[in-house]
Amino acid sequence: MKSSKKRNSAKKAQEKQKNILEILKGHGAKIYRDLDDGQFPKFSIPSRSVSNIVYDKELRQYILGNTASVRSSRNSSQLRSFTQLMWLAFFANRLSQEKKSSTLRDVYYSSQAFAIEFDDQSESDNIIVDLEAVLSKPREDFHIFPEERSSIFGDLNIEYTIPGYEGKTMNLSNHPDGYAIGPSLTTSELLDTSAEIVIAIEKGGLFTRFVEEQVDKKFKAIIINTGGQAPRSTRTLLKRIHDEMSLPVIVLTDGDVYGEHIAMVIKSGSANAAHLRELTVPDAKWVGVWATDIEKFKLPTIPMTESDIKRCHDLKNDPRYADGIWKKELEVFLRIKRKAELEAFSKYGLTNITDKYLPQKLELAKSL
Amino acid sequence: MKSSKKRNSAKKAQEKQKNILEILKGHGAKIYRDLDDGQFPKFSIPSRSVSNIVYDKELRQYILGNTASVRSSRNSSQLRSFTQLMWLAFFANRLSQEKKSSTLRDVYYSSQAFAIEFDDQSESDNIIVDLEAVLSKPREDFHIFPEERSSIFGDLNIEYTIPGYEGKTMNLSNHPDGYAIGPSLTTSELLDTSAEIVIAIEKGGLFTRFVEEQVDKKFKAIIINTGGQAPRSTRTLLKRIHDEMSLPVIVLTDGDVYGEHIAMVIKSGSANAAHLRELTVPDAKWVGVWATDIEKFKLPTIPMTESDIKRCHDLKNDPRYADGIWKKELEVFLRIKRKAELEAFSKYGLTNITDKYLPQKLELAKSL
Repeated sequence: MKSSKKRNSAKKAQEKQKNILEILKGHGAKIYRDLDDGQFPKFSIPSRSVSNIVYDKELRQYILGNTASVRSSRNSSQLRSFTQLMWLAFFANRLSQEKKSSTLRDVYYSSQAFAIEFDDQSESDNIIVDLEAVLSKPREDFHIFPEERSSIFGDLNIEYTIPGYEGKTMNLSNHPDGYAIGPSLTTSELLDTSAEIVIAIEKGGLFTRFVEEQVDKKFKAIIINTGGQAPRSTRTLLKRIHDEMSLPVIVLTDGDVYGEHIAMVIKSGSANAAHLRELTVPDAKWVGVWATDIEKFKLPTIPMTESDIKRCHDLKNDPRYADGIWKKELEVFLRIKRKAELEAFSKYGLTNITDKYLPQKLELAKSL
Repeated sequence: MKSSKKRNSAKKAQEKQKNILEILKGHGAKIYRDLDDGQFPKFSIPSRSVSNIVYDKELRQYILGNTASVRSSRNSSQLRSFTQLMWLAFFANRLSQEKKSSTLRDVYYSSQAFAIEFDDQSESDNIIVDLEAVLSKPREDFHIFPEERSSIFGDLNIEYTIPGYEGKTMNLSNHPDGYAIGPSLTTSELLDTSAEIVIAIEKGGLFTRFVEEQVDKKFKAIIINTGGQAPRSTRTLLKRIHDEMSLPVIVLTDGDVYGEHIAMVIKSGSANAAHLRELTVPDAKWVGVWATDIEKFKLPTIPMTESDIKRCHDLKNDPRYADGIWKKELEVFLRIKRKAELEAFSKYGLTNITDKYLPQKLELAKSL
């Protein structure tokens, strides 16, 4: 299985590139056709306004509704954003053809080489999301990558597809500090694994603890350090491991409302990525630290701040928090008004979290 | 040379452990002697008060002066911190013996298992720095590690010394997203390298660009992503590569006062680590982005904020900024009141920074 997968990997990467180039070409051709027909060229963009973002219970994430807006070169108030979007499609085409990576910030500055005007980076970021919506593809597909780094450790064999590394393989359990998750890892072919679960954990210190205590071997796990809110690259990789290797994903965070939301974003994304499906793992399970764990395990706590409490109230209005543990734990946080960090288990010894808490939660995850 | 180094690596790690255990034992024995002699036990701690922190021009970093303070169990106002420090030494001994890693936060929560009282983590953090000062050893030596992660890429062969990985080797150019820098990398044996320079860069996006453009091969470089202000683990590794492999270190940051200070901290540490020598690379060179580069390369800029300007004025009073480029560039920042990001070079094309700017700066670094 491994070798046949290996043979396919370079081909798949080529197909992906071909695919994005064809989609871009299609949009470019339409602009030319409009011009040939004596029409003002235009783009149709799925509307990303709040009124067009709805929660889809089946997909278990936010999606865009059917409203589309037109960005036309005929309308002088739309000419600026039409031009920006057209330039970006051109630039995305070049990045994809040359297989060069870039970042949101790179794109903003690159525009200046072409005398395309953006007031600031937030304006160009916004146009990049527009292009994602037009193409229905995440920006990583047209080579705009996040610059944050998280890391991964565990028995997973991958094969690189980026230029210069095609065909090279790596086992991700060889470097115990973890492999940084960037463009080469998220675009790699996932070959095989002996793991049976993925554990995403919020903090680097705990990641080290988990590696040191051989959680990967004892629980047949791939361990991912999200470094706080999981960057897009991490969420992409989590989804791919879940979908392609059929592994369940569990999330361990600090016991506070921000931790709960880190897990929710891994599970169902965010409203401003409602036009994408590549960043969510709807089956991901938040296993702790729950507000109820704080009481159950008598963890040392810190008082919630005003901003923590406000955040709880905000999330109560989010449909994703309307039932199940998501709702229940928010309510307990609001009642106890205390929070606890993952490291709080060190009160019972440094390995209490891996020896006692984790096995309980893994067992419980089966029934969640 | 490689194989003989390899043979020594496990031995060196053992010696390091033995060394820290002996120092701790020495302090413990002194406590017992005091008790046997009918004396109240005490610690002598190099004073870390501002008046005892001086800039040493020869070492090119802040150091502690000769003032020491006594933490005695006789004095009821010192009994609390004496007890905390004694417990921490006990706990450090256990961590070192068992070769378990921990973090500042772990130590805070672990204290609760022993009914040692700390009001909050900042109190325990402070005692940890006291123990560093007492032992003249960085806390990593007694197994308290930072949780931040940065990453490294380049032709450097290392050999792990942590339990379970002793004797295993790794070439750090095999994973193009970079190897996370954590406890296993900072404690590894550095075997050999074909590199002739180390380039520390502030941003993940540029790190990816540098790898993609094969800066490691073209300029025989090891590339390190500091991810903003370089974590202690990164500074430790930079120092080790510089000292043990005799490689020059250059630092590339955004063109602003915070970037200038990122470079300075790599070079000469910070006042609150004046008791340590393990975290500085006095020969490190800041090669850009300078304020003068902003003008020279006509880079797109952003106005400096009030806080940027205040920071410039603060640094002008720091003796390390009293001459050379450090002083000059601060003055130019204050005159132009503009700043520029590393990505600003993308105005001239995505590879302008690696094709044009970097070679100029590498040439110039030779004369700095």
